[in-house]
Amino acid sequence: MFHLLDIIGTMAFAMSGALTAMHKRLDPFGVFIIAFVTAVGGGTLRDILIGKTPVGWMLDLQYVYVIILGFALAIVFRKKFDKLRTSLFLFDTIGLGVFTLIGLERGIIYGLHPAICIALGTMTACFGGVIRDILCNEIPTIFRREVYATICILGGIVFFILKKLNLNDDVLYLVTSIVIITVRLMAVKFKWSLKAFDHK
Amino acid sequence: MFHLLDIIGTMAFAMSGALTAMHKRLDPFGVFIIAFVTAVGGGTLRDILIGKTPVGWMLDLQYVYVIILGFALAIVFRKKFDKLRTSLFLFDTIGLGVFTLIGLERGIIYGLHPAICIALGTMTACFGGVIRDILCNEIPTIFRREVYATICILGGIVFFILKKLNLNDDVLYLVTSIVIITVRLMAVKFKWSLKAFDHK
Amino acid sequence: MFHLLDIIGTMAFAMSGALTAMHKRLDPFGVFIIAFVTAVGGGTLRDILIGKTPVGWMLDLQYVYVIILGFALAIVFRKKFDKLRTSLFLFDTIGLGVFTLIGLERGIIYGLHPAICIALGTMTACFGGVIRDILCNEIPTIFRREVYATICILGGIVFFILKKLNLNDDVLYLVTSIVIITVRLMAVKFKWSLKAFDHK
Repeated sequence: MFHLLDIIGTMAFAMSGALTAMHKRLDPFGVFIIAFVTAVGGGTLRDILIGKTPVGWMLDLQYVYVIILGFALAIVFRKKFDKLRTSLFLFDTIGLGVFTLIGLERGIIYGLHPAICIALGTMTACFGGVIRDILCNEIPTIFRREVYATICILGGIVFFILKKLNLNDDVLYLVTSIVIITVRLMAVKFKWSLKAFDHK
Repeated sequence: MFHLLDIIGTMAFAMSGALTAMHKRLDPFGVFIIAFVTAVGGGTLRDILIGKTPVGWMLDLQYVYVIILGFALAIVFRKKFDKLRTSLFLFDTIGLGVFTLIGLERGIIYGLHPAICIALGTMTACFGGVIRDILCNEIPTIFRREVYATICILGGIVFFILKKLNLNDDVLYLVTSIVIITVRLMAVKFKWSLKAFDHK
Repeated sequence: MFHLLDIIGTMAFAMSGALTAMHKRLDPFGVFIIAFVTAVGGGTLRDILIGKTPVGWMLDLQYVYVIILGFALAIVFRKKFDKLRTSLFLFDTIGLGVFTLIGLERGIIYGLHPAICIALGTMTACFGGVIRDILCNEIPTIFRREVYATICILGGIVFFILKKLNLNDDVLYLVTSIVIITVRLMAVKFKWSLKAFDHK
């Protein structure tokens, strides 16, 4: 189940990356690379920083196949994207929850401090998008208005609070993902956003 | 012989990086760094992703010396660049072939899947230029029109097909480089390029 | 003493990152991330390249706390920044000296060639700023006019010359930092800068 959600999230991230890249008028190779880094960039950065190499997608080709599929679907359906926006957003939100959990888990396996684990969870979920934006020559969206990353941090805090209560792992994972997914849906519905500082 | 070609490729990449950076009006330090990352950035990224650290150029100073030489030559001849364009292009194309092979080989040593080896070959040959473009605040050229990367992927596929035939390693390397170099020359001569997707 | 200076430098770098990010109208999450990468980005890149993982700040939370403090101070005092400019500049210069030394030392521990150690020192001191500028979608300042990096290289050369003389380690560290800090102060006072090459 968890693995299936991981696959769904990866494909959604790849599709959203491909769509951004096509919007930027990149060529097919560029679109594929952007789809790829959007999907696995966050996890790759995490693996590099903790020293888990070769990084994940080099050892498990499933991710590569899923990204190729997402890339192909994004190309085929690129003109019908408006109608698919809602499904894609839903899948993307599932990805947000699952990727955060994978990052948290990896940090725990490496025996790192909860604060660092939360950083790893947030990085896994959000930094694929950061790398995508850098490659597309834009200031990363999540640095400007999206509450995206803040939700992952919140999810991470909930996770460690529940963990202190010695909950069963399945419950822990389920509740954390539900928190992340729900808050994300509410954030979009009610247009929550972070304000820039009033500078001068 | 192979090592000599590696050196020629590294120098060509360093020179092309330095020329781009001077064009962007960077100061000498900036020009040197851009020359450096253009030459070894792809291989460095590859080494980081597979976990071969300290990365290559830290252990073999030859690369550093060659880059310094390429940097110096680019500065001295910067006003005569138009006359040297053909030689530089030729050296750059040699670099493309050799770097792809080095990446393929590294992947095989690490026991990775052929698809990942091809990704590593392409990365070694092309991602120095990607990092150069990001540092110069541009969308990477190879994402927009160049068939550059596609040729490396093609070379990688040829390599693994020939390998299946149990060819001698020397023949394998020779044929693969010739394929990459020939297709690259033809791509430039006949102005092959990838088209962006017709988005809406 | 050395550790205290490291902490001061880290905080100064975090504050300068936060101020840049607020200037770019990023949201609080963006400002924090920019503060973070400005402070530890150079050391993180160094650790990744030499293979010292998990990278430094994951194992020693002191850095994280100091960055949070610097981030908070930058926000609180953001409107009084002009009055604090001199102190911040002084702290930043201390950071430059200390970070260079840390990078040099790390290279020596890994048994790398002096030229590579100097590269690591420069990277530790300067590349947090490079990553900050890339994330803010600008060509890195130190590639355009600042003598910043050149001073670190000079400091590194002084360090290895003194080391040849078999000086006591404390003297070695003290003299190197004084050289870096003094030259930096003079560079700013006398407006030293590197000129771009006259291209055509």
